[in-house]
Amino acid sequence: MKIVALAGGVGGAKLADGFYRARPDADLTVIVNTGDDFTHLGLRICPDLDTVCYTLAGLANPVTGWGRLEESYATLDAVEMLGGPTWFRLGDRDLGTHLVRSDLLRAGKSLSEITRQFCQRWGIRANVFPMSDDPVATIVHTQADGDLAFQDYFVRLRCQPEVTGFTFQGIDSARPTPGILEAIQAADLVVVCPSNPWVSIAPILGVQGIRSALKARENVVAVSPLIGGQAIKGPAAKMFRELGWKPAALSVANQYQDFIKSFLLDSADVDDCEEIRQWGIIPYVSDIIMKDIPGRIRLAKYILNLASQLQGGTQSS
Amino acid sequence: MKIVALAGGVGGAKLADGFYRARPDADLTVIVNTGDDFTHLGLRICPDLDTVCYTLAGLANPVTGWGRLEESYATLDAVEMLGGPTWFRLGDRDLGTHLVRSDLLRAGKSLSEITRQFCQRWGIRANVFPMSDDPVATIVHTQADGDLAFQDYFVRLRCQPEVTGFTFQGIDSARPTPGILEAIQAADLVVVCPSNPWVSIAPILGVQGIRSALKARENVVAVSPLIGGQAIKGPAAKMFRELGWKPAALSVANQYQDFIKSFLLDSADVDDCEEIRQWGIIPYVSDIIMKDIPGRIRLAKYILNLASQLQGGTQSS
Repeated sequence: MKIVALAGGVGGAKLADGFYRARPDADLTVIVNTGDDFTHLGLRICPDLDTVCYTLAGLANPVTGWGRLEESYATLDAVEMLGGPTWFRLGDRDLGTHLVRSDLLRAGKSLSEITRQFCQRWGIRANVFPMSDDPVATIVHTQADGDLAFQDYFVRLRCQPEVTGFTFQGIDSARPTPGILEAIQAADLVVVCPSNPWVSIAPILGVQGIRSALKARENVVAVSPLIGGQAIKGPAAKMFRELGWKPAALSVANQYQDFIKSFLLDSADVDDCEEIRQWGIIPYVSDIIMKDIPGRIRLAKYILNLASQLQGGTQSS
Repeated sequence: MKIVALAGGVGGAKLADGFYRARPDADLTVIVNTGDDFTHLGLRICPDLDTVCYTLAGLANPVTGWGRLEESYATLDAVEMLGGPTWFRLGDRDLGTHLVRSDLLRAGKSLSEITRQFCQRWGIRANVFPMSDDPVATIVHTQADGDLAFQDYFVRLRCQPEVTGFTFQGIDSARPTPGILEAIQAADLVVVCPSNPWVSIAPILGVQGIRSALKARENVVAVSPLIGGQAIKGPAAKMFRELGWKPAALSVANQYQDFIKSFLLDSADVDDCEEIRQWGIIPYVSDIIMKDIPGRIRLAKYILNLASQLQGGTQSS
């Protein structure tokens, strides 16, 4: 069983972890957004990659879904004492990741090689890939604050500025990480995780060849990151609204309609099914909130079961 | 009262702290070796500057005299888990210093400006200066291992290779930090701290204008870093031996004979006095070990008393 998951941060990491735990025997490939990556205090920080890896390694805080378990902030306290920047909450253990990664990047290793090395060290059996080894930087265009680097918008300004659009700097020349197009082509199931469509999934889709690789497959299912018009976490619903879309599961399905065959949405959004079906997408309804680790496994198993039905030619909605 | 101290790491920091505590009203300037500075994991690390600053700020471990109080190593553990380098023991709090300093250096600030900012933040009233804002790198030439970067020799190889000489890369073009020549010229007392003559004091003396500024003064006193032929800490005695010198207080005085007027040595080395006096240097004998903070203050007071005697024209040996 070959599973490919497209993931941003927390929501993507949780569902990837669900597959990882539900089917330890499966060949799981996680393709992760790197548009949020940035350089801070001289460190190359890849928030989504780290969230996915920490989660799969059991090093993440299982309650928040991000950040490391039993983290401390002694370095950040020392940085603060010296008047350095503290708006990005770097934990001591997390810092080790950024220090080693930055050092290896300077030494000429690619981000995907480094990620592979880290996964081996952390005992992760899944294949975790950055979407590209070429740097891509998400720029958030805002009404009041102009163009913002993603982490400026996301962390420092807490997603408060009204968004007018996005640019993914470098996306036109970003080549897919070696192996990821092949993984999509060979997958028994491709899942677009419940991550932010605007800033987590869109950059992945923008990398050369990924969208068309997905279009060529019949087994691509997306999971809605919106439930009852709201995101579990993050600014996805707010972005839909600010960009003139209804903040709803159907809007997510609409954005993915050129490459998904199935769409999984929450029972709270059952009314969206009819419109989604009109776009040639089969809607599936379930309880899709992942409150805890059993919740991740439950959702993953639901999707795996759905996939086997699809392969068997039976459809249920 | 204007005091200038030339210092390397631990021994220098302890005596500087003695002056700082013994005479809180004095105008204390500490000129610190930067030949040990290096870049590690992308961080600019200045071990002697940090040891002096931590000590004056009360942030140093008072037992070891170096490293920070109540330090933890969560980041280094995380680095180790990823296969990163751990031979240089970076503590979590210490890391904050290196991160902020490296960031400010990249932003174009000079090391002396950064050190001034840090001292203000840490509440240090003394003037702590790197010997130069221009980078100088101590290279240790060895018999068996060739040329070694200083920290490679000092930390990684624990000073084990036999030394044949030193090169201070960049020293010929290293300009003195603005203000330090003036501080030497205006000082009521200039003290060469009990630091390693080969790798802590020699680089300072090599910076343009410093040695001649010292030669022009009559109030330069050096304190022996060797007691009974041994260093309290570090490879000074071993270096003297390997370079063909007797590891003794008198060898230290010999190296400084062109610019010191007085030399303070331990009562264990009273036999060295006669030879030292023949070089036109007045030897002073006392118990110069600084076992604890009262010991630092006691030694500082002894030197201050000696200085006032010198100024009064009376000499005792």
